[in-house]
Amino acid sequence: MQVALLTVGDEVLAGETTNTNASWLAEELTGRGVTVTRVLTVPDDEAVIAEWVREFSEQFDAVVVTGGIGGTHDDVTVEAVARAFDRPMVVREDQRERLVRRAEAFREEKPALAEDYEFDVDLDAVASLPEGARALVTDESWAPGCVVANVYVLPGIPDEMESMFDLVADEFAGDRTSETVYTPRPEGALGGALGEVRDRFGVAVGSYPAPVDEPGRIRVSGSDPDAVAGAVAWLRDTVETCDPPE
Amino acid sequence: MQVALLTVGDEVLAGETTNTNASWLAEELTGRGVTVTRVLTVPDDEAVIAEWVREFSEQFDAVVVTGGIGGTHDDVTVEAVARAFDRPMVVREDQRERLVRRAEAFREEKPALAEDYEFDVDLDAVASLPEGARALVTDESWAPGCVVANVYVLPGIPDEMESMFDLVADEFAGDRTSETVYTPRPEGALGGALGEVRDRFGVAVGSYPAPVDEPGRIRVSGSDPDAVAGAVAWLRDTVETCDPPE
Repeated sequence: MQVALLTVGDEVLAGETTNTNASWLAEELTGRGVTVTRVLTVPDDEAVIAEWVREFSEQFDAVVVTGGIGGTHDDVTVEAVARAFDRPMVVREDQRERLVRRAEAFREEKPALAEDYEFDVDLDAVASLPEGARALVTDESWAPGCVVANVYVLPGIPDEMESMFDLVADEFAGDRTSETVYTPRPEGALGGALGEVRDRFGVAVGSYPAPVDEPGRIRVSGSDPDAVAGAVAWLRDTVETCDPPE
Repeated sequence: MQVALLTVGDEVLAGETTNTNASWLAEELTGRGVTVTRVLTVPDDEAVIAEWVREFSEQFDAVVVTGGIGGTHDDVTVEAVARAFDRPMVVREDQRERLVRRAEAFREEKPALAEDYEFDVDLDAVASLPEGARALVTDESWAPGCVVANVYVLPGIPDEMESMFDLVADEFAGDRTSETVYTPRPEGALGGALGEVRDRFGVAVGSYPAPVDEPGRIRVSGSDPDAVAGAVAWLRDTVETCDPPE
């Protein structure tokens, strides 16, 4: 299964936020045997988001989009997904009722905060999803996420994103396994071993050198677990490996 | 000036490495007034890298590519850039001589390491660049980076990437300024202020809520510094702001 990640947010493009959502999702998906094919960050721009949702949705088995859901003017991700699939946005009564209940519960729980600030949320907007979307709802998030065709839309706040991903995690699976070995040998002294292990075992091999005096990493992956294990055993025999750095 | 960042590496797609190179570059570029338009991570795949170098090079003012330069079989970035511009790779004698000198210096400096390992590097390969490329050379990096047309190719190891970026940093400039204010007010209580400040001052406004009980961020940006300052002053008068969290 091949999955692309699409991160929405000007603040990520400005370097104010490091994209830990993407690395968290990439690790989760890779751990499930999925191949993450692209990670793209785009601005809070409905047309650009729609373009990439469409492109990745056609090109890969699934797309996970994070960020830009909610009730303010710059939250345009859900509208962009509707546009990508040429579907209208519809107010979901079930979501609207949930939001009203949440707002009431919030007022009871935090009366001082509710009194200090005048909440002015367009509930219809927050409760709207593309026609036919499957809503994703968690206790952590105010706005619903959704699934449209093979596109999964999750919030941008990391805790909220992770909880919502849990709801759909089992829909992601694949047969890709990988293993990483460490070597004290400088990359320049690995010789032809990397190309040879790739050709012998039919696996993908990546070499990621570290600064001098730290071990480098060799990452072996493939869809045949026996081939990956064989390749790793061969590497341990051939190029000298060591423990990972602390 | 609009700049796209292209990160090369299977290990980033696998979530083993968080893309701090992209956030470092994004912050540097944004600080110089540049608008970072896209941040894309692709696998160590020459055809895919070439496709995106070409696409971004045509679409934006410049592209900064990191990762996948060096001497092992999975380092295909420089070849991909040559392919994107339909230029042959040529062995650069100046680079080859530099590498020979570096290898000699290394043997003198670390005789034990040089004796322990048989170095087997294809110097011609590491010293090859696309025809007509400007070489980028630092003390930190073994392999040269390069500039081809509006595409800047830098190493993937963060220290090496940062040193090499310093060589070309002054080639990036723009008139985009931004300022971030923090607010204790929940996003749901910002009402129409965000849309209003955008329309009044002609600036871009992003709202990035934090978990409950932490201040949220409002990011204002634009190409007119007076408009950005005016928008921030208006926000401070209108929505109540606070200090950034620690």
